[in-house]
Amino acid sequence: METILCLLPLTDAERAAFLAAAPDCRLLFHPIPTYRYGIEAVTQEEVSQATVILGNPPKALLRHAPHLKWLQTWSSGVDYVLEEGAFPPGAMLSSAAGAHGQGVAEVMLATLLALMKRLPLYRDDQRAHRWADEGKVKSPVGERMLILGTGDLGGSFAKLVRALGAYTVGLDRHPDRPAPDFDEHRSIAELDALLPQADVVAAFLPGTPETFHILDARRIAAMKDDAILLNAGRGSAVDCLALAQALDRGRLWGAGLDVTEEEPLPPDHPLWDCPGLLLTPHIGGGYRLDATLRAVNALALDNLRRYLAGEPLRNRVL
Amino acid sequence: METILCLLPLTDAERAAFLAAAPDCRLLFHPIPTYRYGIEAVTQEEVSQATVILGNPPKALLRHAPHLKWLQTWSSGVDYVLEEGAFPPGAMLSSAAGAHGQGVAEVMLATLLALMKRLPLYRDDQRAHRWADEGKVKSPVGERMLILGTGDLGGSFAKLVRALGAYTVGLDRHPDRPAPDFDEHRSIAELDALLPQADVVAAFLPGTPETFHILDARRIAAMKDDAILLNAGRGSAVDCLALAQALDRGRLWGAGLDVTEEEPLPPDHPLWDCPGLLLTPHIGGGYRLDATLRAVNALALDNLRRYLAGEPLRNRVL
Repeated sequence: METILCLLPLTDAERAAFLAAAPDCRLLFHPIPTYRYGIEAVTQEEVSQATVILGNPPKALLRHAPHLKWLQTWSSGVDYVLEEGAFPPGAMLSSAAGAHGQGVAEVMLATLLALMKRLPLYRDDQRAHRWADEGKVKSPVGERMLILGTGDLGGSFAKLVRALGAYTVGLDRHPDRPAPDFDEHRSIAELDALLPQADVVAAFLPGTPETFHILDARRIAAMKDDAILLNAGRGSAVDCLALAQALDRGRLWGAGLDVTEEEPLPPDHPLWDCPGLLLTPHIGGGYRLDATLRAVNALALDNLRRYLAGEPLRNRVL
Repeated sequence: METILCLLPLTDAERAAFLAAAPDCRLLFHPIPTYRYGIEAVTQEEVSQATVILGNPPKALLRHAPHLKWLQTWSSGVDYVLEEGAFPPGAMLSSAAGAHGQGVAEVMLATLLALMKRLPLYRDDQRAHRWADEGKVKSPVGERMLILGTGDLGGSFAKLVRALGAYTVGLDRHPDRPAPDFDEHRSIAELDALLPQADVVAAFLPGTPETFHILDARRIAAMKDDAILLNAGRGSAVDCLALAQALDRGRLWGAGLDVTEEEPLPPDHPLWDCPGLLLTPHIGGGYRLDATLRAVNALALDNLRRYLAGEPLRNRVL
């Protein structure tokens, strides 16, 4: 008999649908309400009994999951699972890629527009009861936006900024494949040639050896003086110390980071106080947006039905 | 001979075009770089000589402009000119309505998305080097947005939020006229009936007796507990003290004001520190966005040609 450990926060209706989909299984509901909070309440005993886990268990517990046959994450990225020794050999792994595009893209659009209109400075002025003019603003209309990553995250972002008048260039390793959300589709190998013309450079990349510090000191230096740099996806795509130095020297119009190399960012990291930086603590994904939570749960339910029927899983990674 | 006092900041090409359009006139160029700064440098002598003024002279000087035949403002609103005794009787008045829609709409969109994603709180956390989760976020997708004013400002805002998935209801005094930027077009007389269903209420209204405190304590109380209130156009449309009280009591998801009843907002006004409030100091209009400045200057040049040719002016108010 399957023992299914469900770590997803479900509505009553969703819970009933999971129960109906798996009538002959033992279902353990242990909802983790958010990205971080509550995760420590999952026990080693629960994880070691499970044949199926829906959600993201603590990595340390996953090392002792002898019966695990399938893990469905709520996250789009699975890098933490793929670390050496973390995942039981032979088990299947599927991600929630596709469920987080809207949430991540909207947060990055909000960050981009806030930077363009200098809202972080106006917020600081508000806190100081100061009615001050912070000068020129930018518009997305006609801006050339280089978007690294053309998947669910990058594609969702491209759709939003195109709707506001931007021109989008999507970069990935497969420029021959279709990418209908973009005005142009180019190879990531052209990055160095394309950087100096970009008004906005936005990274939506998974954490892999290939994407590590893809935006490093040299490439940040190649950007326009008044360009904007954005990073979602994984923090390792941007060399955070190089970015901090560039901003401190007055380079770039601004930068918006929802992810950083180290999370949480240490309190003494130079990024916090950099001029032109707007920082959010990895809020694009996760359950903060109801639409994301509904999409994650629907995907997990669909994959559970497929798993029990012996059909191929969606978003299978291993 | 016409004496044309031009208070607009022009590029060399724009200045050449103005000179070419008015070869037989005396042109005085005295550019005011922004909404406020530099305005005090305009002299009474310049204003009293002028037969035409392009731009917004200080109101006090306008009371002594015996030769003025036409004033073309850079602003969309002309309420300050229409105050009793401020404008020379018999002179023509035209506004820059139509030039500010993009700038104002983009700032209000940036403010709306910032509120939806809790960016003001994350900015405060960043200043305190605090990596903290500020909870649930909202999305514009499917949100019902009540937009007061269907002119250039309200229409431009409706276009932007519709492109991001919102449902827009435009309100004005002429629901029988076409308003293609909106999903629905209703009479302002229906405001009380429509308020309780709105997720976002956004005012883009001129400063008139009819719009004074149109969003007062009673109407703010009729809004959903988690609705968002926005105000651009003129600050008098919202009762600022009533809004401050509502926010202090935990009502509304948040509010975004680019205009206030008193500007600058006094340093001891209760609005500054209200929870959920994002305040910007009337930055939507003005010259902060290059596209706005170009549009204002093009309109002024076109109207100057019309004036000198004896043709009807665009945007004529008086």
